[in-house]
Order: sequence, then structure tokens, then C-alpha cells
Amino acid sequence: MDIHDIPSKLLRNAVEELSKLPGIGKKTALRMALFLLKQPLENVNYLGNTIIKLRNEIMYCKSCNNISDTELCEICSNNKRNHSIICVVENIRDVISIENTHQYNGIYHVLGGIISPIDGIGPSSLKIDNLLNKLENHNVEEVILALSTTMEGDTTNFYLYKKLSQYKVKISAIARGISFGDELEYADEITLGKAITNRMPFESTITN
Amino acid sequence: MDIHDIPSKLLRNAVEELSKLPGIGKKTALRMALFLLKQPLENVNYLGNTIIKLRNEIMYCKSCNNISDTELCEICSNNKRNHSIICVVENIRDVISIENTHQYNGIYHVLGGIISPIDGIGPSSLKIDNLLNKLENHNVEEVILALSTTMEGDTTNFYLYKKLSQYKVKISAIARGISFGDELEYADEITLGKAITNRMPFESTITN
Repeated sequence: MDIHDIPSKLLRNAVEELSKLPGIGKKTALRMALFLLKQPLENVNYLGNTIIKLRNEIMYCKSCNNISDTELCEICSNNKRNHSIICVVENIRDVISIENTHQYNGIYHVLGGIISPIDGIGPSSLKIDNLLNKLENHNVEEVILALSTTMEGDTTNFYLYKKLSQYKVKISAIARGISFGDELEYADEITLGKAITNRMPFESTITN
Repeated sequence: MDIHDIPSKLLRNAVEELSKLPGIGKKTALRMALFLLKQPLENVNYLGNTIIKLRNEIMYCKSCNNISDTELCEICSNNKRNHSIICVVENIRDVISIENTHQYNGIYHVLGGIISPIDGIGPSSLKIDNLLNKLENHNVEEVILALSTTMEGDTTNFYLYKKLSQYKVKISAIARGISFGDELEYADEITLGKAITNRMPFESTITN
């Protein structure tokens, strides 16, 4: 679709801007814009203002670097969460994924990235000082490393493991093994090998 | 994904609003919102304001009912277009589709719908008076009916054909036949039958 064939500058602009969103092509952007034209005025104004408000007012939690509406995020300021367990993740999306499982009641620490020499991201680009400060000044019993099971994730895990070993704290990592629903014959040998070596009590593998 | 697990009201609102767009689920909306958080402030403000401006300032051309930034749309106010040929379409999207072909130099008339008794849309819901006015007061030589080749499209075509027959104007319809690139054996028999009966000069079927 050629955007110049749209006979309205207002619509052309809207399609141009909407198609900058990830995964949105010109055709989908046009569909969205025509949809918006049919919506009540106040709904469209609300959408526009919500986007602007999000970008202008969002903060990053001074304690865990998670997104937040206030200085301290909803999770860090929640007294019902266990503040002695910290789960280290790469980004906000991972926080939301883990929250979605409803299996974790500790707090988080968002690194804001992962060590990746190819992309020029070294340890200094990550928010690690914050985490070490917390270990020094608060009563932290366990740090869970929950990074991706990739080369970069492993590198970052090792780096953090070395740093964290200075402190008297239990360091764990999320379990690796065969996914629920996966067939053994299609599992790669490293995963399968580790899954056999690191076998767990049967009861802990039952889904509830 | 449960939206309540997002640890920020600002982000929850944005995901909620973005997921109201057509074809956008909660997961894609979250991806969009997190993308927006990483964009420069002025870009996000511009997107938000462009959407609001679109909905607040768009007009409908008083002549052809097409979307427009002014009283008369870009096409109707263009003197290089042939104002004696009017192409009747269902909606704005069809105008853009035909403009995309770069094969048409006349003007349009946007009905704003199609006769569909099931949906409660009768002839009175469509912008037909405007079109008849134009035939009475301007020098129109040809009206091209370019509606969908569906039951509703055909009904509307017949209705318009009857109305238009009162005027001394050539009435044509977009050609129907086998699409370019289609294989004969997969064409339905009505289309194939009509395509044989209404065969055309070979030269007119060559793509340029």
C-alpha cells in the first residue's frame, strides 16, 4: 500500500505514526486509523492521552529498577511480599511473566539488560550496584537468578554468581529441564542430560 | 496474560486501551506499550496527539462523502481529475484501494455502507441523495458501480441502477472475471461462466 494514495493528510499522518509501532504494517495501521474514526470522540482522546501519560509519567523503582507509578514500585512497597528473596531478571517483561505464574512472592531486581559483548553491553551497563547495595544493607536470604538460558544469560549468571558469592546469601537459579508437554525424543541432549543428572523428587514435578 | 499482574497502573491503562484496537490482543498491546516506553518523549507525544487530531479534525467531503481535511476533499477539489466520471464505492477503504491502482482519474462517491436488510441497513441509510443531486446539477457522463461482488453489493447495485436510469448517464460496473494469477480449475462456475460469456478483446487483458 502506498501511503501517498490516502486522500487526507490527517489520515496519512496517523497511518505513518501507527505503523511505527512494532509488528504494525501500513495496512494494519490504516485499519486501526479507520477504526478510530468510527469510535466516540472521548474514547479516542482517552487512548491518545493514555499513551502520552504513560511515557511522561512512568518512573523506574529506585529500589529494583522495575517500572513504577511512584518512587517505589507496587511490588517493593507491598508488605505482604517476602523482601528477603530477590529474583534477578533481565527486563520488565520477565517480571510480568513471573507475576503471571502466581508462584512467586518475593521481590525482584531488574538488570535492564544482559551481558552481551557483541552488542557492546558489559557489566557496567547493567544495574548491578543497586543489587549489591541491597545485599549489604538489608536482610536478604536468597537471590534467584532468572535469566534466559542463552549464552548471554549464562555469562551474566556467572558474572553475578561471582559478585554475589562475597555475601552470605543463598544463590539459586530457575530450574532447567524438559518443558511440561514436551516429548523426550525431541529434547536436545544437553537439556535431557542435565534433566537426568539434576533429577528432582517426583512430587515436585506434579502440576497442580 | 492477566493484565492485573502488570505492576503499574499507567502501564495497565495503556495496555487496556491499546488492546481495544482491532486485531490487537493483550500480549501485543503490552509489547507496544513497552516499545513506547523506550521511545523518545517527543515521538510518543506526537503519536498520541496525531491520533487525537485525526479524530477531532477529520471532516467528510460535502460533495462525495469521502474523508477530508477540508470541506471539499483532495480528490473533489483537484482540477486535474475528470469530474464527469463518478465511481460509486462502499467506503473510504475502497477509495484508497482504487487510488492505489493508479488506473482511475475520475472522482468518487462514497455510499458509507451497502444495503443489508439483515443488518438493518436500507437505502435510506446510504448517502444516495448527494449522488442524484450531482447528476441533476452537473455534467456527469458516466457512473461506475464499484461495489463488492456479494449478495449485498448486487442488491445495492440493482437499487442504484434503477435510480440512475432516470438520468441520461452511462452506467457501468467494474469488470468481473478470473483474477490475474488464478488457475481456471479452482475458479467457481459462476465466475468462470460469466468470464466466458463476457469475454473481452485480448489486448485489454494484458498486464502492463
